[in-house]
Amino acid sequence: MNGAESLVQTLTDQGVDICFANPGTSEMHFLKALENPRMRSVLCLFEGVCTGAADGYYRMKGTPASTLLHLGPGLANGLANIHNAKRASSGMVNIVGDHSAAHLKYDPPLMSDIEGLARPLSHWVRRVESARAVAGDVTTAVSKASEHPGRIATLILPGDASWQETGIDGTPVAPPPAAAGTKVPDAARIEHIARVLRSGEPALIILAGRSTRGPALEWAGRIKAATGCRIATQFFTARIERGVGRVPLERIPYAVGPAIEYLKGFRHIITVETTEPIAFFSYPDKPSLLKSPGTAVHSLIETDEDGAAGLRMLVEALDATNVAAVLQSGSVTAVPSGALGPTSIAQALAAALPENAILVDESLTTGRETMGLTAGAAPHDLINNMGGSIGYGTPVATGAALACPDRRVFCMVGDGSAMYTIQSLWTHARESLNITTIIFANNSYAILKAEYANMGAGAPGARALAMIDIDRPRIDWLAMAKSMGVPAVAVDTAEAFHRAMANSVHEPGPCLIEVRL
Amino acid sequence: MNGAESLVQTLTDQGVDICFANPGTSEMHFLKALENPRMRSVLCLFEGVCTGAADGYYRMKGTPASTLLHLGPGLANGLANIHNAKRASSGMVNIVGDHSAAHLKYDPPLMSDIEGLARPLSHWVRRVESARAVAGDVTTAVSKASEHPGRIATLILPGDASWQETGIDGTPVAPPPAAAGTKVPDAARIEHIARVLRSGEPALIILAGRSTRGPALEWAGRIKAATGCRIATQFFTARIERGVGRVPLERIPYAVGPAIEYLKGFRHIITVETTEPIAFFSYPDKPSLLKSPGTAVHSLIETDEDGAAGLRMLVEALDATNVAAVLQSGSVTAVPSGALGPTSIAQALAAALPENAILVDESLTTGRETMGLTAGAAPHDLINNMGGSIGYGTPVATGAALACPDRRVFCMVGDGSAMYTIQSLWTHARESLNITTIIFANNSYAILKAEYANMGAGAPGARALAMIDIDRPRIDWLAMAKSMGVPAVAVDTAEAFHRAMANSVHEPGPCLIEVRL
Repeated sequence: MNGAESLVQTLTDQGVDICFANPGTSEMHFLKALENPRMRSVLCLFEGVCTGAADGYYRMKGTPASTLLHLGPGLANGLANIHNAKRASSGMVNIVGDHSAAHLKYDPPLMSDIEGLARPLSHWVRRVESARAVAGDVTTAVSKASEHPGRIATLILPGDASWQETGIDGTPVAPPPAAAGTKVPDAARIEHIARVLRSGEPALIILAGRSTRGPALEWAGRIKAATGCRIATQFFTARIERGVGRVPLERIPYAVGPAIEYLKGFRHIITVETTEPIAFFSYPDKPSLLKSPGTAVHSLIETDEDGAAGLRMLVEALDATNVAAVLQSGSVTAVPSGALGPTSIAQALAAALPENAILVDESLTTGRETMGLTAGAAPHDLINNMGGSIGYGTPVATGAALACPDRRVFCMVGDGSAMYTIQSLWTHARESLNITTIIFANNSYAILKAEYANMGAGAPGARALAMIDIDRPRIDWLAMAKSMGVPAVAVDTAEAFHRAMANSVHEPGPCLIEVRL
Repeated sequence: MNGAESLVQTLTDQGVDICFANPGTSEMHFLKALENPRMRSVLCLFEGVCTGAADGYYRMKGTPASTLLHLGPGLANGLANIHNAKRASSGMVNIVGDHSAAHLKYDPPLMSDIEGLARPLSHWVRRVESARAVAGDVTTAVSKASEHPGRIATLILPGDASWQETGIDGTPVAPPPAAAGTKVPDAARIEHIARVLRSGEPALIILAGRSTRGPALEWAGRIKAATGCRIATQFFTARIERGVGRVPLERIPYAVGPAIEYLKGFRHIITVETTEPIAFFSYPDKPSLLKSPGTAVHSLIETDEDGAAGLRMLVEALDATNVAAVLQSGSVTAVPSGALGPTSIAQALAAALPENAILVDESLTTGRETMGLTAGAAPHDLINNMGGSIGYGTPVATGAALACPDRRVFCMVGDGSAMYTIQSLWTHARESLNITTIIFANNSYAILKAEYANMGAGAPGARALAMIDIDRPRIDWLAMAKSMGVPAVAVDTAEAFHRAMANSVHEPGPCLIEVRL
């Protein structure tokens, strides 16, 4: 058994059985080792698709995927979506091939400081020193990636460590990593929060991480019902279970002014797996902290703690175990017709969403203010961009669809954003993924027009607009989809948009809808 | 004047008058400053296009371009082509926007260690501390980028340094950087090399950097004529002036075996702005150093020295000032017909190349062994990938076309490579660039099939092949080109390929030719 075989065997022994790959010469033995039928390999034509897919996979599955990247530049191409994954607390194991140790001293063209590139966005980086060390290093990498919150583990695999024999008879089988997130908050902290909530002073609980779904969400709903506090998320959340029958969560607005307005009535902000709300960007005349001066911030659950356990403890401290949460009722959404706009788009989406869909939202300006209108849709998961690096949507949809092959993924993405990692469409077609990609084609980095004014730069002149409008040439999205084997349709009315989404649910495999705005 | 305006004014004062931009919210004041009519701004839909374009611009113009990138992830997306540019010794000034200093302490979502990401692939990194400091920092950045060899200068521009007033009345005008590369080798070294060449022992001069064009190339030709030595380049060279009437250069083969065979007859290897030949990758049973054990290596010109001056000194030391170099004669290339293959492709290219074309080569397997067949074409420049990170071709062509608007750029690229930075096509269309993009569509990472065997991994099995073949789905290149506004044609015979190339020369603006293999 060589190092590469040991690597793939150890990964799968540890439960990492999918690899989003963009290989090169130095990874040929790894490729050979991928013949191991326990590992599913998914080819991506750009590394940002690999790393974004690993993020999406983790968000839905809760366990890390692996990526295979080619030396420093291959890693570099994946870093933007590693950044997003890191901010989403998604665990992943990146395997980065490198030249053999003996070759590096000649400074060959593809050599770079891989550790240096990996460190700023990885929690853990290690270079494999020998084939024999592979199994142990991989075990540690998976263990790190599987912590709660999820971690970015990056393992550098030199060619010689890959092709040399391990000298070990079989791979030592280490137990898969223990379930993470068993750390619970101490009772004194729970008692303190219970007192705050019992005071009757206006309080907002902000939920994040794993606490926006499953039992944690249910407990939060009871706390709200028992105390009259409100419960919300930050504007962006890694994954929310929402829709009919779920505990509904409010959403703190994105823009600084509305966010301050939203928060100003609260005497207390109680954080669960997150921090107090801050502005996404800094602006010349706007504050970074969004809460009012008189608001107290209390941490209920730290990011490395078990939100469900902590919230349950709080329910018990409040004697609210028998209180029922108020659940989201179904809004009978009529199918809208006529002009497409943020409201009709959201209404069409709400009407079309099938039960158990996964909604990946990178709609930016088109969806920003109106996602609340989909709260009464059929139960679904909503996924947001946590790191703010655009081009996350279509790759994350790729990984989510592979994690949940029985669920339809709706990926809403602005045209500007879609272009960063448009190569995803090819993997959607290759793997016949059940993804409906919805392109909001306003032919503009529309978000920047608003931000130009927000920054106090006034109205953009002709040269600035030329850096914001992407309408010369207009991107032909039907041709783009066709180029990578994805069936596509363009719509310019709300009813056609609804029909296209509804149709996409009944046809296995990917499709793309261009929404002409 | 605010910091952003000071930045743009200083850049243009220093001769940096083009900016390849992919802006975000934190760069809105920079965008406003780009209204300055002295700066040409070119929008790219992916950052790897920006940085690759800056590389191509430098290769043809010899002076640095600037890029505008959005925080750490924007820089990360540009790093792979920064790596290639660094290895090509192309100078560039990267401006990376960041949050204002006061905002960073809240760890906002888009925050990352920008310095950490920049350092591994930059020669110089600085964070602007205030609006007042902008002019001085930009002057230093341009000066660093303009050194010989060219350098990667990365300047981090926080929002507040951008939007605050400089408090200086106008920008202090610093003189543009002095012409670089005036350092010459010392006479003793020249004398030593002259003795080596006069010995009559077989010698190979390997030229690189600025010595593969202009007067340096001419001097090298005289040295060859006077001494009987041979003159060659590494397999990859940043830019070569070649074709009819130029001094022809041999090319050291790419593959390890043929390279060793090629080099084994030489008693002496003399390097000019490069190092002794090494293998591109490391393989289990192949050496890294390609020369024979008995070969002596002599450095004639270091990378920071003036190659033309040094070679002229050597000509004088050899008393060869009156010796004429043997120049490339015109090979009357008949237009090939019939099946497309590496030979007929190269012949068609040689017949179609217009005078003064720029040939950007990322053809990998399709062009690797046959580029010698184009040596007798009309005079042209040949550009290669120096860093080995694929996806360099179409961005470099973008920058080369902007540097030389009167010259046609032929960009030869494998289908797998083209997908990494395919967004370039959109900028080709937007800027009406005279670029003929030639896609060699073999529906495969064909290079990896050979490398799989080279690595001793045998023949790839079904699962490994699934990571190498990109034929499911086949990329529809005509649709891809159409999606981004580039006219396209597909060819499947040598004569049709030739005709399509010849036609492209007469039609201003971009086009794409899919070569179906």
